[in-house]
Amino acid sequence: MSAPAWLAEGRTWVEAALERALPSANEPPARLHQAMRYALLGGGKRLRPALVRLVCLELGGTEAQAAAPAVALELVHTYSLVHDDLPAMDDDELRRGRPTLHVAFDEATAILVGDALLTLSFEVLAGDEPLRAREHARVLARAAGSRGMVGGQVLDLSLEAGATPDTLAALEDMHRRKTAALFAAACEMGAIAAGRAAERARCAAFGERLGRLFQAVDDWLDVTGDAATLGKTPGKDAVLARPTLVRALGLEGTRRRAEELASESRQAALELCFGPGTALHELSAFVLARKA
Amino acid sequence: MSAPAWLAEGRTWVEAALERALPSANEPPARLHQAMRYALLGGGKRLRPALVRLVCLELGGTEAQAAAPAVALELVHTYSLVHDDLPAMDDDELRRGRPTLHVAFDEATAILVGDALLTLSFEVLAGDEPLRAREHARVLARAAGSRGMVGGQVLDLSLEAGATPDTLAALEDMHRRKTAALFAAACEMGAIAAGRAAERARCAAFGERLGRLFQAVDDWLDVTGDAATLGKTPGKDAVLARPTLVRALGLEGTRRRAEELASESRQAALELCFGPGTALHELSAFVLARKA
Repeated sequence: MSAPAWLAEGRTWVEAALERALPSANEPPARLHQAMRYALLGGGKRLRPALVRLVCLELGGTEAQAAAPAVALELVHTYSLVHDDLPAMDDDELRRGRPTLHVAFDEATAILVGDALLTLSFEVLAGDEPLRAREHARVLARAAGSRGMVGGQVLDLSLEAGATPDTLAALEDMHRRKTAALFAAACEMGAIAAGRAAERARCAAFGERLGRLFQAVDDWLDVTGDAATLGKTPGKDAVLARPTLVRALGLEGTRRRAEELASESRQAALELCFGPGTALHELSAFVLARKA
Repeated sequence: MSAPAWLAEGRTWVEAALERALPSANEPPARLHQAMRYALLGGGKRLRPALVRLVCLELGGTEAQAAAPAVALELVHTYSLVHDDLPAMDDDELRRGRPTLHVAFDEATAILVGDALLTLSFEVLAGDEPLRAREHARVLARAAGSRGMVGGQVLDLSLEAGATPDTLAALEDMHRRKTAALFAAACEMGAIAAGRAAERARCAAFGERLGRLFQAVDDWLDVTGDAATLGKTPGKDAVLARPTLVRALGLEGTRRRAEELASESRQAALELCFGPGTALHELSAFVLARKA
């Protein structure tokens, strides 16, 4: 199956699971639950949960086994977007073509929606079978915490403020934490879900390469993309003097770096015995070519 | 043992455990880890983790069994204080006699520190034995999430803004979620830690009464306490027209309500077979008499 086809399949599947995991819009406190649904059900590529499902299925697991970790990952990803968009952080007003949460509701609600989504992600994991529940929680918490995604956001802000030397190494460390850690977790949780503990490390390595590729393309799209396709405001990186690969390597250098990372991703897929023609192998070409 | 004695013992014990659970101050991103330590190691009564330990020990468990849930609860409580103090929420500048985190660092760091502490709490739980890890995570996530503590904060803000009818019932619903849910979780996690599943519901009921008592005394102290003893600015409830028991029932009415809740807590302790002279039974008198 082609990458766009399984991504579309994964999206439909995870959106139904997200709908079931969320409190209904009229359950009190209704305003909070409406805002959680606004944040979560307003589109998105659903790439991370689709990855959990794909890895789990490709390793012989079932959709049912992939459901809790897929939902939990999308909850964590969405909370991070809500908090990153806040005025004290990236101060973004447009996300997936709609007003960001603190614009549509208010700032206090946006902070609390993020907190509630993050908490719900661990509640969803705790609904799984005990050993899997614990392993998923361990992997997700490490990837999302101060040594992972949250730490990456702190590094991003400090690079922006010029507090840290703006070297390629510092930038790639930031990308590893901010973006790649959650992709690595997605793939590792796919292996845990499928009960394939021996493949965990190789799956995580594949996800890490793919996540760095995804971030390199993100930096490139902020310069070359348009608002309608992206669903967010392009050109903000340069305006805000954000630390990006484009600033460090130029546009062509960023493209070359992305191609190298795509090649590394394919190599990592091969090490998992997924060769040309398999979805995991083709995925890097798809991420490299993405326009949004 | 008297309530102050076991509380002091619990405080020393949990502070050593918190020190071990936190990344060191020089681990990158150092600024984030320093801020996490500032938030967590700056004092506090440590009542919730002390409760986990006390319930666990009284039900025949060990300190080692109580460690992960105690640390996780204090991490969640501390993250909630950091986020509640933010300018978009309660806008507090003083906490435990020191500048609040967004004043000592900055607003973005305060948001991210809260996120990192919440994430770490579930990482700590995931270090436990699988079945206990899952049960703790389930209880904690429910108590802390949109139906519990975070929902309570939303209701608090909406009562403040006058968006919800300001009745005693609405106020007590808010207290149940915002404060009592975490106390109930502390006591239930004590029972889980001790492997006493049959006592979970009774422990939760005891903690719920105690938490509501704690909140009633909090509302009372905001009028009658002084800044030096409280470690925070008193009188803010009235200035901000916050929804409190004092506003709903007056000062004397609040005191009477607290005494009723203390009596209900003692009754709940009795139902756990802890009679007069036991720490769990004496605890409500201690919370009723607290000055900070």
